[in-house]
Amino acid sequence: MKNFKYQNATKIIFGRGMAGCVGEEIAAYGKKVLFHHYGDDFIRSSSVYQTVLQSLQAQGLEIIELTGVQPNPVLSKVREGIEICKREKVDFILALGGGSVIDSAKAIGLGATYDGDVWDHYTKKHVIQQTLPVGVVLTIPATGSESSAGSVITNEDGHIKLLGSNGRTRPVFAIMDPEVTFTVPRYPMAVGGVDMMSHVMERYFTCEEHVELTDRLCEATLRTIIHNLPRTLQEPTDYNARAEIVFAGNLAHNGLLDCGRVPDWSCHFIAHLLGGFTNLAHGATLSILTPHWMDYIYRNHIDRFAQFAVRVWDIPYNEADPEQTARAGIQALRDFWKSLDLPMTLSEAGVTCDRLEELAELVTEDGPIGSIQKLDRQDVLNILLASR
Amino acid sequence: MKNFKYQNATKIIFGRGMAGCVGEEIAAYGKKVLFHHYGDDFIRSSSVYQTVLQSLQAQGLEIIELTGVQPNPVLSKVREGIEICKREKVDFILALGGGSVIDSAKAIGLGATYDGDVWDHYTKKHVIQQTLPVGVVLTIPATGSESSAGSVITNEDGHIKLLGSNGRTRPVFAIMDPEVTFTVPRYPMAVGGVDMMSHVMERYFTCEEHVELTDRLCEATLRTIIHNLPRTLQEPTDYNARAEIVFAGNLAHNGLLDCGRVPDWSCHFIAHLLGGFTNLAHGATLSILTPHWMDYIYRNHIDRFAQFAVRVWDIPYNEADPEQTARAGIQALRDFWKSLDLPMTLSEAGVTCDRLEELAELVTEDGPIGSIQKLDRQDVLNILLASR
Repeated sequence: MKNFKYQNATKIIFGRGMAGCVGEEIAAYGKKVLFHHYGDDFIRSSSVYQTVLQSLQAQGLEIIELTGVQPNPVLSKVREGIEICKREKVDFILALGGGSVIDSAKAIGLGATYDGDVWDHYTKKHVIQQTLPVGVVLTIPATGSESSAGSVITNEDGHIKLLGSNGRTRPVFAIMDPEVTFTVPRYPMAVGGVDMMSHVMERYFTCEEHVELTDRLCEATLRTIIHNLPRTLQEPTDYNARAEIVFAGNLAHNGLLDCGRVPDWSCHFIAHLLGGFTNLAHGATLSILTPHWMDYIYRNHIDRFAQFAVRVWDIPYNEADPEQTARAGIQALRDFWKSLDLPMTLSEAGVTCDRLEELAELVTEDGPIGSIQKLDRQDVLNILLASR
Repeated sequence: MKNFKYQNATKIIFGRGMAGCVGEEIAAYGKKVLFHHYGDDFIRSSSVYQTVLQSLQAQGLEIIELTGVQPNPVLSKVREGIEICKREKVDFILALGGGSVIDSAKAIGLGATYDGDVWDHYTKKHVIQQTLPVGVVLTIPATGSESSAGSVITNEDGHIKLLGSNGRTRPVFAIMDPEVTFTVPRYPMAVGGVDMMSHVMERYFTCEEHVELTDRLCEATLRTIIHNLPRTLQEPTDYNARAEIVFAGNLAHNGLLDCGRVPDWSCHFIAHLLGGFTNLAHGATLSILTPHWMDYIYRNHIDRFAQFAVRVWDIPYNEADPEQTARAGIQALRDFWKSLDLPMTLSEAGVTCDRLEELAELVTEDGPIGSIQKLDRQDVLNILLASR
């Protein structure tokens, strides 16, 4: 186990009807709120939008709405938000939505405290150390952004999607009502589940030894998602299944599962750029890439992939041929995602991308990526070519 | 799953050599530090004490030492600390030690902000809402007090041991170096392990349904303790085993495993008073009480006890006789604790207690205790009599 520091002060407010707390939570931080959300008819006609609005109004908060967030949230919208925050001296940013809105809100929060261009934070030119406080009312369980340190923003100038990470950007609170997610359609729920599973697996597939507790926590989280995700798709109003998925999605990316480990993140790094290039949903890029990444590397990490097979998928350990066990675990993951109608290749997702070489070049421009196994430009390209 | 709120902002600083960070961590809070510890030769000659002292001095902090904390920390020492904090205008309380020192420090932190008697907080006469910031350098893994909300203090006037809980008393940081625990002798390590396991089981044995994720997290934590605790006793300098135990002890009581559940706490409530009456180590009172509590209630909760047997102890599920499975899980727990030379009865611990009726009366004076199964005065007495 490696030395680590871990702090996650996000207040989790979980359960039925909890969105009504939002005004009271924000009132401690100030009077003027940037209310950031998708802004479409779907959200405006939702009961959670009405609940949030009434709760803000009941506290006498001044509301400035900033809408029009897209999946793969874009830098231009972030800049628009920053300008409003600076001009209007906003005290607090409230994100009502899923990962896209939350990430956009986090970027706005950072940029609002910085004289330069917020994109500097994402290119690592300058790490912004302050942020306006951000709060979340979650509507789509997936990214874990509601209490994570990261945010992913796409710069439309070249469709470059980059991660900016900073512990200070963890939201001060995250309200998660499983009932609010009942209306999330099948496909976003499914790709959200992939993202959660990937957040766990990026940590699980580590070269660090003696990480038993976090191994077991990862396995617990994966098993819970595997059990409950199909139930949420079959019966969208199954509160119990939704609650497990919403909670698991948070735990998958709140940082606890990282503790003492060396995470990999290869699939996410490639997926972020692939999402920027293709506009595929983040979880779809991960369902395509992850099994191909596993195929590419597992032979060098038989023990870990066999443990994954045995403990996560209940596959009997094959003493005579542990590699067979490892392969069976990867196949089980593939079968599970296929059973949820998730794409296993770019062509299954109806997408072609003629920029795979450029992507492989770009994702490795600072050197090889990954940790359990370093991937150079050619490795990434091989995985991408297998994923077509 | 029940609605819940969860926030734990304690900064976990984990690993080899981390105690050297302590001065820097405290400097943000002020200049004057109450340095609270056991004060015996053992601690003063330890390298962690020297490391901490040097780190405080390097930051130019003013140090007031308050020593002489006992196991089952007492109210008189707490009052002494409060008086110092008020008189000297202390900015920060640093606890170097295990649960006793940390609980004492938390009580001092609360009392230092309150004009009345701090015991009011423990008798629930007045919940103190403020505290001086408390930081921890952990030397004995057991109670999880380094990031928990509670503290347990014994009032020598009648040997009454009570729990005061308040989210604000979570320490601002907890430094946990597994190497520092190498010198903890066998018995305190063993009873510390019991306390950790009990913290998990108090949550695990719940009447709340649909708590799959936290069930699995509890099982993960228990399995990790069961695997590693014997290794720490056999080979005290096994860093990997110590690291798992130190981390698991924290997770067992940081509040995450509570989320959405209704915990029981019967064994802890009885154990607190039994510890106050007998001066047995907290973990020893729990190793005595817990299996007897399980014997007393399991027939009404076969499914949950069978799940405990199957998932925690790898006992095959007996379709024809699930009650047998449940019993086998309780026996496995007993066998495990016996194998670590832990007492299973008061007499095995070399103690007689002629105040069991008084204890049963006292612990139920506000009504039945427990949640998975309510225990009245007679129930508690029955469990205590079986535990003699």
